[in-house]
Amino acid sequence: MTLSDRILMGPGPCNPYPEVARALARPMLGHLDPDFLALLDDVNDMLRRVWRTSNALTFPVSGTGSAGMEASFVNFVEPGDPVVIGVNGVFGGRMVDLARRLGADVIAVEEEWGRTIDPERLLEAHPSPKIIAVVHAETSTGVRNDIAALGREKGEALLLVDCVTSLGGIPVLVDEWGIDIAYSGTQKCLGVPPGLAPMTVSARAREMILPRPTSWYLDLNMISRYVTGEGTRAYHHTAPISMIYALHGGLSALLEEGLEESWTRHGEVGTALQNGLVDRGYSLWAQEGFRLPELTTVTLPHGVEDDHYRHELLHRYGIEIGGGLGPVAGKVWRIGLMGHTARHRNVTALLGALDEIGTGL
Amino acid sequence: MTLSDRILMGPGPCNPYPEVARALARPMLGHLDPDFLALLDDVNDMLRRVWRTSNALTFPVSGTGSAGMEASFVNFVEPGDPVVIGVNGVFGGRMVDLARRLGADVIAVEEEWGRTIDPERLLEAHPSPKIIAVVHAETSTGVRNDIAALGREKGEALLLVDCVTSLGGIPVLVDEWGIDIAYSGTQKCLGVPPGLAPMTVSARAREMILPRPTSWYLDLNMISRYVTGEGTRAYHHTAPISMIYALHGGLSALLEEGLEESWTRHGEVGTALQNGLVDRGYSLWAQEGFRLPELTTVTLPHGVEDDHYRHELLHRYGIEIGGGLGPVAGKVWRIGLMGHTARHRNVTALLGALDEIGTGL
Repeated sequence: MTLSDRILMGPGPCNPYPEVARALARPMLGHLDPDFLALLDDVNDMLRRVWRTSNALTFPVSGTGSAGMEASFVNFVEPGDPVVIGVNGVFGGRMVDLARRLGADVIAVEEEWGRTIDPERLLEAHPSPKIIAVVHAETSTGVRNDIAALGREKGEALLLVDCVTSLGGIPVLVDEWGIDIAYSGTQKCLGVPPGLAPMTVSARAREMILPRPTSWYLDLNMISRYVTGEGTRAYHHTAPISMIYALHGGLSALLEEGLEESWTRHGEVGTALQNGLVDRGYSLWAQEGFRLPELTTVTLPHGVEDDHYRHELLHRYGIEIGGGLGPVAGKVWRIGLMGHTARHRNVTALLGALDEIGTGL
Repeated sequence: MTLSDRILMGPGPCNPYPEVARALARPMLGHLDPDFLALLDDVNDMLRRVWRTSNALTFPVSGTGSAGMEASFVNFVEPGDPVVIGVNGVFGGRMVDLARRLGADVIAVEEEWGRTIDPERLLEAHPSPKIIAVVHAETSTGVRNDIAALGREKGEALLLVDCVTSLGGIPVLVDEWGIDIAYSGTQKCLGVPPGLAPMTVSARAREMILPRPTSWYLDLNMISRYVTGEGTRAYHHTAPISMIYALHGGLSALLEEGLEESWTRHGEVGTALQNGLVDRGYSLWAQEGFRLPELTTVTLPHGVEDDHYRHELLHRYGIEIGGGLGPVAGKVWRIGLMGHTARHRNVTALLGALDEIGTGL
């Protein structure tokens, strides 16, 4: 097999931080080895800093971002529970699919793709929902939904937030915003390969964990006895050691730079890319004021043919960008600048490549 | 953090093959990149060779071995389904726990820990079970259960087998034995870090996949559209790229040596360890004729104190072995020789270390 090397400017995975490759090469340890448990504690402490939370139950779920979503619902949702879910893209729709499988009474609050969801609509959708769930950064549209307003007004509801594409790239303030349950993925703005889903659960939400969820693998009652180190540490499933090494490496790089500095860097390169694309005739698709810097969505100008451009980018330049999903397939690009990929040189390379393809160079 | 380096002779993870470290260092690719999809196809082809199957749906589940267990049940079990499960250790009991969460009518066939389950008892437990489930190699006891006899007589039932600790170490003949659903883990006799669960599903079982399982993450209807390459490849969740690289590296090493040669190597080192321990006064715990070479269980002779010996092994020699689980905690050791750890030099090192600790050297 060839060792293809890409600039990963799709909607994730990004290029991992160089520190990650070094971390992956650490010698294997057992999942109950005291040295590994110390490293896991260190990962969870770093995750608390990145989530801006003091939640004791903060850890990486042993699966990709979607496993984090599943853990966030399956531990809390029983048949008949009223669950309000915002839907303005693929990942809100995925929450609805999962919650319905679990028997929830789902109240879906839909908004046009590319536009943000008015928090008032979510707050008024049901008089006493058990959960209000929303995607912070919609990976299918490049739109940010407002979370802080939901936290202020949520009442007794649990606020459940998909932070897969936001964590590390834009502010996510779990405690300040009043988020109860949140999940992310390692392969976006954390600059780590895909495979883990960082998750955090508030003290209030912990008291509402179902005693016996239908999932064994994602049962937080058992998982928390292993990951938190509270009481006696009890084995649940074998932790994915190498991926936790990788996350340790990525979080160390991120926090050495500084979380706020990472937000600033993602913001600056995103703006530079968006300006450069507008200059070339592309239209920004996401609603103004709610555009993600880490994921830019554009509709293509006349003469820019989706398949041809993406093929040339991949095969001549080794640059991956993402196509549109669902109704906007073929009409929209999704261009990521996440984690280690969020560098000005990558903006320069992509814009230059688009110019060359356009002029037939 | 220190870079502790261990000989991993516990019940898993093992030391990965050296080729795995190289594979983990491959540059990141997107989960829809044609070069990555070719590598995934290659992994699945190698898995078919290791499983001894032609099953089209053969792939690594994006989670650890227990996620493979969950995928094996949640896609097939509906409330009220009669499910016969053999229980002669922790991992049979885990199957019972999960099947009951899914509402199955579980008929548990129990056997004393350390003894094998008579296949006739499983076959006679229910007149028409939907599933007969059993653990091939019980990681908690070191006992092998007979699978071939179940396959011959199973009738209309689906035969579901936990091969976490058997695959790659002892013969697992999926097609010849008539196994319908099987899962494993990467961190045992495949010589890869923990994090993926190789799974295979027969054509007959595929037709019985529930249209809408309660799990979204493990829904085989959607996953199979991504992993098999049948029809149009559709994104489900972001594949754990680095771990699939690792599995590619490990399977390549295993198949270069040869699958039967790997079985022979595991058999030889296991016998050498068991003889060496008996010579030193240890008693083999698992029933004769059904002892796993890759996982030896022993009861400790007079004068060998569990905590002291395991502490010395870990801290003076960097050797990890496993303690007993549940009722035999403190009384039994579980010593693994799996994957790259299954080398004669490791047997020599462990026996020598035990001698030194015993004589106070």
